Amino acid sequence: MEAVRARIRDVPDFPQKGVVFKDITPVLADPATFREVIDAFVSRWKDERISKVVGIESRGFLFAAPLAYALGAGLTIARKPGKLPWETIREVYSLEYGENALELHIDAVKAGERVLVVDDVLATGGTADAVGRLVARQGAHLVAYSFLVELGFLGGAKRLGREHVHALLSY
Amino acid sequence: MEAVRARIRDVPDFPQKGVVFKDITPVLADPATFREVIDAFVSRWKDERISKVVGIESRGFLFAAPLAYALGAGLTIARKPGKLPWETIREVYSLEYGENALELHIDAVKAGERVLVVDDVLATGGTADAVGRLVARQGAHLVAYSFLVELGFLGGAKRLGREHVHALLSY
Repeated sequence: MEAVRARIRDVPDFPQKGVVFKDITPVLADPATFREVIDAFVSRWKDERISKVVGIESRGFLFAAPLAYALGAGLTIARKPGKLPWETIREVYSLEYGENALELHIDAVKAGERVLVVDDVLATGGTADAVGRLVARQGAHLVAYSFLVELGFLGGAKRLGREHVHALLSY
Repeated sequence: MEAVRARIRDVPDFPQKGVVFKDITPVLADPATFREVIDAFVSRWKDERISKVVGIESRGFLFAAPLAYALGAGLTIARKPGKLPWETIREVYSLEYGENALELHIDAVKAGERVLVVDDVLATGGTADAVGRLVARQGAHLVAYSFLVELGFLGGAKRLGREHVHALLSY
């Protein structure tokens, strides 16, 4: 994973002053590095009978989609309010100032499914936690949250439950 | 492709009154159908020496990412202004009322690369055309635009150049 880590680019003051953003786009751009990342996700989850992978809008889609394809699982997407066209369920999460929400289609996951939630970066865990609550409301089994990068100092794994959190790289 | 077509859901009056939206999320949700779609893209493009697949925000990511993985190509993303953290180039496109724009990172595609632009639905072709212009500005070779669905009655293929447009399904 050190070749992958070397391609993650720190962008200071994005999206706001004082934040150092982890830009994962160089990881995607190089075929061997992108393949290494997806294969590492596949290797971790291939024996866990995952039936549905949930990608979190929108960089989560970049990892969730090839993972679902390679696992032979279904794919669904968690989106900001108003983006999904069909009937939805919604969970709210807190931001530093105010709140936001994520939605799933009501038929996105079914009772009894084994679900993996995927995103690029685990920061405070607010969005992933909202998706976990949506999955639980549908009676599905949340196997784990899986990330390319975990920013350990922000405490997201504690919020989600350390035993449910997997990341390929930690900072 | 008829099993795929059967899973595309018409949603009336989304995102606005009078529009019938093609909801592709049921295509993703079924493992065999999702696999069939990605394999059909792979079959079409595997002999074209594609070096970079561009996914258009954000449903385009769902098809571009597994396609890039399966082809052994690199992946990059075209996004709305302000979403990409690094230095970008931008192209504007017209909407029914007003205009919008899409951006690529300046290092997203390189001169001489063979590039495939991927999105879920071809409607008027405004966004795809903007991405095509971004690719051309970098000196890369646009091999084609490839879509899950083409809405033929909206004239997008004519705008993009019919010889550069591929779609798995047409309406």
